[in-house]
Amino acid sequence: MDYYSDDLTALISELSKLPGIGVKSAQRLAFHIVSLPQESAERLAGSITKARNSIRYCKCCQTLTDREICPICQSPARDPSTIMVVENSRDLAAYEKTGRYNGRYHVLHGAISPALGIGPADIRLKELMARLQTEDVKEVIIATNSSLEGETTAMYISKLIKPTGIKVSRIASGVPVGGDLEYIDEVTLLRALEGRVEL
Amino acid sequence: MDYYSDDLTALISELSKLPGIGVKSAQRLAFHIVSLPQESAERLAGSITKARNSIRYCKCCQTLTDREICPICQSPARDPSTIMVVENSRDLAAYEKTGRYNGRYHVLHGAISPALGIGPADIRLKELMARLQTEDVKEVIIATNSSLEGETTAMYISKLIKPTGIKVSRIASGVPVGGDLEYIDEVTLLRALEGRVEL
Repeated sequence: MDYYSDDLTALISELSKLPGIGVKSAQRLAFHIVSLPQESAERLAGSITKARNSIRYCKCCQTLTDREICPICQSPARDPSTIMVVENSRDLAAYEKTGRYNGRYHVLHGAISPALGIGPADIRLKELMARLQTEDVKEVIIATNSSLEGETTAMYISKLIKPTGIKVSRIASGVPVGGDLEYIDEVTLLRALEGRVEL
Repeated sequence: MDYYSDDLTALISELSKLPGIGVKSAQRLAFHIVSLPQESAERLAGSITKARNSIRYCKCCQTLTDREICPICQSPARDPSTIMVVENSRDLAAYEKTGRYNGRYHVLHGAISPALGIGPADIRLKELMARLQTEDVKEVIIATNSSLEGETTAMYISKLIKPTGIKVSRIASGVPVGGDLEYIDEVTLLRALEGRVEL
């Protein structure tokens, strides 16, 4: 690609390493970036460096944050007796957006996947078990994804916690609100049937 | 979004300003970036700053490059008597990828659009006219897009050049190779019919 400048080619190559960004999108982004006012480009580059350098895991719930203890774990308004277990910080953010969950979280940073060689020791599970010993937890809500890995992880965690006597629950799976039955896969339809509630 | 770190929120906001990147994609990219090894994140940030700071317009063809004269204009292997006029550097790159065009280029950085208030003075047209006076050009191939703006620009340029006696041509428009007639719009179909060639 010597018809671009070397620096532009380097930028395209860096951008195309990002997830979901192909060569075409990387080109479009790179041409956009070099056409930005210099201070905007600097701000973008700076925000990358700053976010990467300041990021750490919350000592308590393991979510990505820039503090030792994240704002949620630190908040006195959150109920410390309920922990929702999620696969990653984006899932935490998704539940936070509902504005209706008032407990704390625990972020596993992954899910158990024998196919990918990811075992229980590779996700932040021992940190969860440690919390259950020191914190006064009454319920653990497992909100891992409804995928094979997510279900495997949920089963594993529930077996691990049950002997402690702490209540373990799993978020419901079924037909999404507003979903059209016609377009929903059979496994979900069966799950929705099994999980039916009396009206 | 105070459930993320401030720096992460800032990064998400910067990324979501990029074209074609919505908030969801920006989140996914940001979480990917902060999970990168520190040197990879630095390399990405550095490539943005470097590309933006070194970018300039080729003094001859106006393409984006990091030199005073771009590699194509400087190459003795390229035929200086043919100039292909394109709207932007990405279009130049698209023709370069064919590996079959051996002339030079001229990049307009836009197209005439009365609707958007972009006139002939807003694109690099006078630079093209200046080249025609100093360089020994025999043919100008207009390869602007086949959109309303592209066609308007092509007409305008051809009227401007015709009096100089230099040959002006326009790339063919018609059915894309491998295109299924059934899915092609009527304007293109009619254009392909008008432009039919004898076999």
